[in-house]
Amino acid sequence: MVRNGSVESPSPRPRIHQTHPHDTPLFQSTVSQSNLRRFNYWILLFRLSAFCFSLSAAVFMLTTNVAHHDHDDDSISPPRWYHFGAFRFVFAANSIVAIYSLFEIGASVWEIYSNCTVFPEFSQVWFDFGHDQVFAYLLLSAGSTGTELARQLRGVDTCTVNNAFCIQSDIALALGFVGFLSVLISSLLSGYRVVCFMIKGSRFVH
Amino acid sequence: MVRNGSVESPSPRPRIHQTHPHDTPLFQSTVSQSNLRRFNYWILLFRLSAFCFSLSAAVFMLTTNVAHHDHDDDSISPPRWYHFGAFRFVFAANSIVAIYSLFEIGASVWEIYSNCTVFPEFSQVWFDFGHDQVFAYLLLSAGSTGTELARQLRGVDTCTVNNAFCIQSDIALALGFVGFLSVLISSLLSGYRVVCFMIKGSRFVH
Repeated sequence: MVRNGSVESPSPRPRIHQTHPHDTPLFQSTVSQSNLRRFNYWILLFRLSAFCFSLSAAVFMLTTNVAHHDHDDDSISPPRWYHFGAFRFVFAANSIVAIYSLFEIGASVWEIYSNCTVFPEFSQVWFDFGHDQVFAYLLLSAGSTGTELARQLRGVDTCTVNNAFCIQSDIALALGFVGFLSVLISSLLSGYRVVCFMIKGSRFVH
Repeated sequence: MVRNGSVESPSPRPRIHQTHPHDTPLFQSTVSQSNLRRFNYWILLFRLSAFCFSLSAAVFMLTTNVAHHDHDDDSISPPRWYHFGAFRFVFAANSIVAIYSLFEIGASVWEIYSNCTVFPEFSQVWFDFGHDQVFAYLLLSAGSTGTELARQLRGVDTCTVNNAFCIQSDIALALGFVGFLSVLISSLLSGYRVVCFMIKGSRFVH
């Protein structure tokens, strides 16, 4: 019964619809347990996707400057990704989201196997939702900024001189946008959990 | 009782906690009515703010090209906002959000005065939330794109030649970001309403 979480953590509102934990009938508990488990599998799936895509975006951006040493004899020195503020922003945002997603994957797996949240329930649902929201906006902002820079670079002949650089940064941007979509869906799911918690005083979805 | 909305519109899930409309005790009905009214005032406030800021951002961007006819004798022709794809994006996004906010202000006022939603309740809560989400991301994307372009323009001497152009577009971008914050908060509020509707089968917040 302690695992329900409603005993451990204070609720921000009075729980109108909630029965006393010791009165909960067994069938409702097992139904909501299995619903929560299915819900957690979905969240885990999108966290995995966010991790893979944002990590690959960061790695693609990071390796963009390595492959062009054969251009050193050109009069124009080859561009490096870290010469451009927008690309640094893309790299930083995707790295942060990759680290955060790794942590959240751990938290999800822990919750699926032990039925407890890592932090107290109240902190956990708000932590997840708040970070998902912020990181979704962060990734979109980084992606848009990087895309505008990539468009500008096409205008000023950087891409005709060094086309591989532009293609590789385009791929990194595209991967970042897919990562953004994953974080966006995670944020909708964790937002649903937050409102469930606000209304019913427990993270269990019915 | 029809105003409760639970009779008119189909609910996506079985309503576990809902009593039959004809059994609703008077005190609960008036409490949730007054809560809903307060909630609607908050939403209206943020819609008004979104409207004002996105409209002024669009107008500022639109008028950026008018004030520089005295530069026509320069060798460099003065820049116009519509020469830049990113500024066109900023203008379009802010105009769309201004029109949408105007419609939503009307819908909010209608709901406060008549206690009914404009569309059926199910459509209304999903319409509001979906559009708020999309437009929040749209405004942020436009703002980031425009900011990157403004940074690039500072690098290529456009701003030293024609500083008023850059200052005016910076103001338009800043207004757009404030509009984004308003739409973001509206989207959180309407998201809360959607989950209330999903869980309890009515848009009433307790």
